[in-house]
Amino acid sequence: MKVSDIVLGRPLATHEEHAEHIGVAAGVPIFGLDGLTSAAYGPEAAMALLIPLGLFGVMHYLLPIFACILTLLVILYFSYRQTITAYPNGGGSYTVASENLGSGAGLLAAAALMIDYILTAAVGISAGVTALVSASSESPKWGPILHSHQLLFCLIILVVIAIVNMRGVKESGFVFMLPTFLFVGTLLLTIGLGIYHIVVTGGHPTALANIPPPIADPITSLKPMLLLWLLMKAFSNGCAAMTGVEAVSNGTTAFKEPRSKNANRTLTVIIGILIILLAGLSYVARAYSITAMDPDATNYQSVLSITVAAVFGRGGFYFLTMGSVLAALSFSANTAFADFPRMARAIAAKDYFPHVFLVRGRRLLFSHGIYALTGFTALILILFNGVTDRLIPLYAIGAFLAFTLSQAGMVKHWMKEKQEKGRHLKMFLNGLGAVATGATLVVVLVTKFMSGAWVTAILVPFIIGIMMMIKRHYTRVNLETVDPAPLRLSGLEQPIVVIPMARWDKITEKAMRFGMLMSPIVKVVHVDSEDTDALGAVWNDMVLGPVRAANMPEPELITVKSSYRTILSPLMDYVLKLEDDNPGRKIAVLLPELVVRRWWENLLHNQRVQILKLMLLLKGNQRIVVVNIPWYL
Amino acid sequence: MKVSDIVLGRPLATHEEHAEHIGVAAGVPIFGLDGLTSAAYGPEAAMALLIPLGLFGVMHYLLPIFACILTLLVILYFSYRQTITAYPNGGGSYTVASENLGSGAGLLAAAALMIDYILTAAVGISAGVTALVSASSESPKWGPILHSHQLLFCLIILVVIAIVNMRGVKESGFVFMLPTFLFVGTLLLTIGLGIYHIVVTGGHPTALANIPPPIADPITSLKPMLLLWLLMKAFSNGCAAMTGVEAVSNGTTAFKEPRSKNANRTLTVIIGILIILLAGLSYVARAYSITAMDPDATNYQSVLSITVAAVFGRGGFYFLTMGSVLAALSFSANTAFADFPRMARAIAAKDYFPHVFLVRGRRLLFSHGIYALTGFTALILILFNGVTDRLIPLYAIGAFLAFTLSQAGMVKHWMKEKQEKGRHLKMFLNGLGAVATGATLVVVLVTKFMSGAWVTAILVPFIIGIMMMIKRHYTRVNLETVDPAPLRLSGLEQPIVVIPMARWDKITEKAMRFGMLMSPIVKVVHVDSEDTDALGAVWNDMVLGPVRAANMPEPELITVKSSYRTILSPLMDYVLKLEDDNPGRKIAVLLPELVVRRWWENLLHNQRVQILKLMLLLKGNQRIVVVNIPWYL
Repeated sequence: MKVSDIVLGRPLATHEEHAEHIGVAAGVPIFGLDGLTSAAYGPEAAMALLIPLGLFGVMHYLLPIFACILTLLVILYFSYRQTITAYPNGGGSYTVASENLGSGAGLLAAAALMIDYILTAAVGISAGVTALVSASSESPKWGPILHSHQLLFCLIILVVIAIVNMRGVKESGFVFMLPTFLFVGTLLLTIGLGIYHIVVTGGHPTALANIPPPIADPITSLKPMLLLWLLMKAFSNGCAAMTGVEAVSNGTTAFKEPRSKNANRTLTVIIGILIILLAGLSYVARAYSITAMDPDATNYQSVLSITVAAVFGRGGFYFLTMGSVLAALSFSANTAFADFPRMARAIAAKDYFPHVFLVRGRRLLFSHGIYALTGFTALILILFNGVTDRLIPLYAIGAFLAFTLSQAGMVKHWMKEKQEKGRHLKMFLNGLGAVATGATLVVVLVTKFMSGAWVTAILVPFIIGIMMMIKRHYTRVNLETVDPAPLRLSGLEQPIVVIPMARWDKITEKAMRFGMLMSPIVKVVHVDSEDTDALGAVWNDMVLGPVRAANMPEPELITVKSSYRTILSPLMDYVLKLEDDNPGRKIAVLLPELVVRRWWENLLHNQRVQILKLMLLLKGNQRIVVVNIPWYL
Repeated sequence: MKVSDIVLGRPLATHEEHAEHIGVAAGVPIFGLDGLTSAAYGPEAAMALLIPLGLFGVMHYLLPIFACILTLLVILYFSYRQTITAYPNGGGSYTVASENLGSGAGLLAAAALMIDYILTAAVGISAGVTALVSASSESPKWGPILHSHQLLFCLIILVVIAIVNMRGVKESGFVFMLPTFLFVGTLLLTIGLGIYHIVVTGGHPTALANIPPPIADPITSLKPMLLLWLLMKAFSNGCAAMTGVEAVSNGTTAFKEPRSKNANRTLTVIIGILIILLAGLSYVARAYSITAMDPDATNYQSVLSITVAAVFGRGGFYFLTMGSVLAALSFSANTAFADFPRMARAIAAKDYFPHVFLVRGRRLLFSHGIYALTGFTALILILFNGVTDRLIPLYAIGAFLAFTLSQAGMVKHWMKEKQEKGRHLKMFLNGLGAVATGATLVVVLVTKFMSGAWVTAILVPFIIGIMMMIKRHYTRVNLETVDPAPLRLSGLEQPIVVIPMARWDKITEKAMRFGMLMSPIVKVVHVDSEDTDALGAVWNDMVLGPVRAANMPEPELITVKSSYRTILSPLMDYVLKLEDDNPGRKIAVLLPELVVRRWWENLLHNQRVQILKLMLLLKGNQRIVVVNIPWYL
C-alpha cells in the first residue's frame, strides 16, 4: 500500500461517485459547523458593545437586537429552502446571481464569497487556537509553550482539515461528526439544566461558580443618535452568527437523492439547532445575570465559559464542554473547505477561473480548490501570525453581500418561472430576504467601514478584475484555436532540419539519423571554437563519406562565428534567419539531450539544451518545431 | 545602454583578452590584499595568547616567535618565485601537486584550497564589518543600527566585491587600488613616525594616547611543557599572517607578458611590504610597551589601534588609518575571488568539477566560479550571522596543507627536470619550503584540532569524494557517447507517430499535418471522457474524409479508458506498450503546446503537457522521441 493511499485514501473510480454522496447525518457537520459554532461567539459579540450601558442596559437592549437577529435567521431559512429546491444542482450565490442578474452580479457575489470563505477558514482556526491558548494561559508549563507556537498550531489544524477534506466528502463528514455532536450535545445539556434551575428557583437560580460583576459605573444616559449607533453596531456584530447559512445551498450536489429534500432537511436541522442554541444560551445567561466582560481584562472569560460554569460548576463537565467548543471552532473552517472548491468549479466552468479547478482528483473532489484554499488560508494565518481578530469585521460583509445578491436573484428567478405554483408567495419570501439582508449589509458596511471593511471594498473589484482578465484570455484562446474546418492536406512540405553539434559522437549520430529520416535538407550547425578545423575533417570522413556511398541527399555543415563565446545566441540567430529566408517552410530543430539517472548528475551537464528549448519556444513562431532526441546513459 | 552593461560592463570579445591583462600596480591589490591585511591582525593573534605571561613575558617570547614567522615567510617567498617561473600558465597548488605528485595529492590540495578560499572570503568581510561595528559601538546613534544589521553589511560588501569582480580582472585591480595603497601608506607612515620618535627619544618614546596597562598578575613561572604548548599556539596563530602567499602563483595567467616576470615582481612587492609592516609594527609596538588586550574586555582595542593612537594621537590621521584598515580588511575577500574561479577552472578541465566552470562569461572571466564563491560565502555568512571569529582556526590548515603539497610537488618537479640549471639549489629551496610549511601544518593541526580544525579533517575527504564522483560521471558519459564510427545509414525506418488529442482544433490539426509528414503510421490518442462519441463523428468528417479523398495512409483514432480521470498515466501506458509491441521501431510523440504572451497566462492552461514531457523523458528510452509543436496565440 502506498503512503499516499494511507494518508489520502485509495483513488476512487468515476463510477464510485454514487457511494460518496451523503445524508443528513454527515451533512450537518460538513455544512453546519461554521453556522453552529457562531452560537459560541455571536451573542457575546453583540453584548460586548453594550457593556458601557451596565447590567440594566445590556438586559434592556439585548432582547430587541436578538429578536432582529433571530427574525432575520428565520427569513433566511425559508428563503434558502426555496433556493435549494429551485437549484438542485447547486445554488450557490454565484450561480443564482449570474443566472438571474447577469454575469456582473455573479462576479460580485463570487468575489465576495471568495473573501468570505478564505477568511472564515482562517478566522475559525485561529479563534479555536486563541481560545485554547487563553484557556491554558494559567498553566505555567503549557501556557508559554502554546502561546509561542500559536501559528504552528493553526497551521497543523489547517493541514489536518485539508487532508481530511482531500479524503473525500463522506470521510470529512464522518470525522467531524463527533466534535459537532459533542458541541451541540453539551450546549443543549447546559441550556436544559439551566432552564430547570431557573424554573425550580422561580427565576432566581444560584450560580455554581463566581459570576464577574458588570461594569462599575454604567453610562446611564446617552444621546439618542449615539445610542442608535451603538445598537446598530451591536446588531451588526451579532450578525456574525449568520455567516454560515448559505453553505448548504452551495453544496447540494454532495447529497444523496432526493438531493433537494436531503439538503433541505440538513438546512432545517442546522438552523433549528442554531436558533435553539442562540435563544437558549441568551435566556440562561440573562437569568443568571451574566454579561460580557471587557476582553482586555486580565481575568477575562467568555460569556459561554461563565454560563457553563454557572450552571454546572467548574468540574469535569465544564471542561468537556469548553473542550468541545474549542474543537468545533477550530474545525468550523471545514465548511469553507466543503464550499470553496465547488464554487471555484462553478466559476471555472464559466471561464472566469483557471480550468484546473474543473479537474476532479483521486477522491472525486475538486482537489485544486482545496489546495488553493489551504494556500490562501495559510498565507493569511502566517501574515497575521495566527491572530486574526482584526479580520472578523471583513468577512460578515462578504457573506451579506452574497446573501443579498442570491436572494435578489431568486426574486428575478420567480419572475421568469411563470408556471410555478405559489410563485408570488415565494417571490415575497425571497424578496423579504433580499431586503432584510440588504439592509443588514448597509448597517454592517456603515458601522464597520473604518475598522477594516474598506479592505473588502478594495479587494472585491480587484478580484473581479482578475476574473475578467482570465475570461478574456480563455475567450481569445478559444477564438484562435477552434477549427470547424477539416484537415488540410495541401502544401505538406518536409521541414528544414537543424541540428546543433559540438562534436561528433553517438548522440549527434542518433540525431542525424533521425533528421535524415525527417527531411532531405539537414543543416548541422557548429558554433566556432578552436577545434573547428578538426571537425571539418571528421565531417568528411564520418558523415559525407557514408552519405555519398549510399547516394542520399547530403547534409550541410554550417559553422557560425561567435565573438563573445556564447553558443546560444548565434544558434538562435541562425535558426531565425533560416526561417526568414524560407517563407512558408517549417524548421525542425533537433536537440540531442542527455538523460541522467540521478538528479545531481543534471548539475554536471551545462544546461544549454534547456535554455535553448526555452529560447526557441519564446522567440520562435508557428513554423519552428523542437524535437527532443533523448540519449539515455 | 542596457542595465547589465552599466552594472557589469559591456561584453568583451574574445580577441580583447590581451587588453585585460594586468601589471604589477593592479596585481598588488588583486592578489595581495589578503596577505597584506594579515599584518593588521597576525601579530596580535600571536600576542594575545601570551597575555597571561605579562608584559615581560610577551616581550621576551614574542621575538623568537616573530623570527620564526618572518623566516618562514622568506622561505615561502623564494619557494613560490620558483613555482611562478616554472609554471607561467598558472601554478596553483592543485596544478603543481597533481602534475608532480599524482591526482590524489592534487585533489587533496584542491579540497584544502577550496575551504581556504571560501573561508578567507567570509572571514575577511566579516572581520572588516566586525571592526567597523566595534568602532562605532560608542556612538549612541549608529552603534545599535550597525550592530543589528551586521549580516546585512557583510552581504552588501560581498555583493559589491562580486560585481566588481564580474566586471573583469583589470577593473577589480583598479577599484581596490585606492584602499590598498591607503592601507599600506598610512601604516608605513605610522611605522616611520614611530621609529623617528623612538630614535629621537633614545628608545623611550612618549605615547600621545593612553596605553592600557598589561595584565595585573602575570604568571611568572610555567612548566616547560605548558610554556612550549603556549608558544606553539602563539606561533600557529601568527601563521594566519601568511595565508595569502600562494595567491600570485595561482593567478599568473592574469598578468601581461612577460608573465612570470610581472607575477614575480608582484610577489616581491607584496611580500616585501608585508615583511616591513609585520616587523615595523611589532618593533614600534614593543618600543611603546604595547601588548594585546583581552578581547572580552569592555574597553578592548586592537594592538594596531593602540599603536596608531600612541604614535599619532587620536586625531584625524588616526581615524583615516583605522578607516583604511577596515576597508582593506573587508576587501581582502577579493583575493579569493581572483583565485577561486581560476582554480575551479583547472579542476573542471580535469573533469573533477562541473564543466560549467570552464565557460568564460561576458567579461572573459570564469563567471560561474564567481557565482559559486559568492553563494558559498553568503551561505557561511548567513549561517554564522556575520560573525565568523570561530572559523579562523579552520582556514590556516587549508592554506598550509596546500602550501606543503605545492612545495613538495616542486621538489618532484626539479627531480624530473634534469636539464635545468641549478636545479639542486632550487630543489633545496622548495624542499626547505615543504619541510617548513609541513612542520607548521603539524603545529597548526595539533594546537587547533580541538578548537575547530577537526571540521576541516571531515570536510576535506568529503569534498574529495564529491570530486571523484563527478570525475566518474564524466568518464562514463564520455565512454558511452564517444563514437569513432561513421554515420550508419542502414535501418532508417520511419517512426510511429503518436499525437494526444483532447478535441479537434487548429492546434491538433497542425500537429496532424506535421505527423503525417513524418510517417505513414499516425496514431491519434484520445483519453476517454463523456464526449468520446461526438469526437468519433468529428474524426470521420474532419480527418478520414479528406485523407481518403487524397488517397493517403489513414491515421488511426485510439480511445483509451481512464477509470480514475487521469489523462497522463493512460497516455504513458499506451506509448510504452506501443514501444514494446514494435521492437526496434522509433516512437515520435507529438505534443502540441500553447505558447502564451504573458507569464501569468501559463497558470491558466493545465500543465499537463509539461508533466507529460517530463514523464516521457524520465520513463522513456532511446526509442522515444518528443516533438514539441508550439502554437502561438
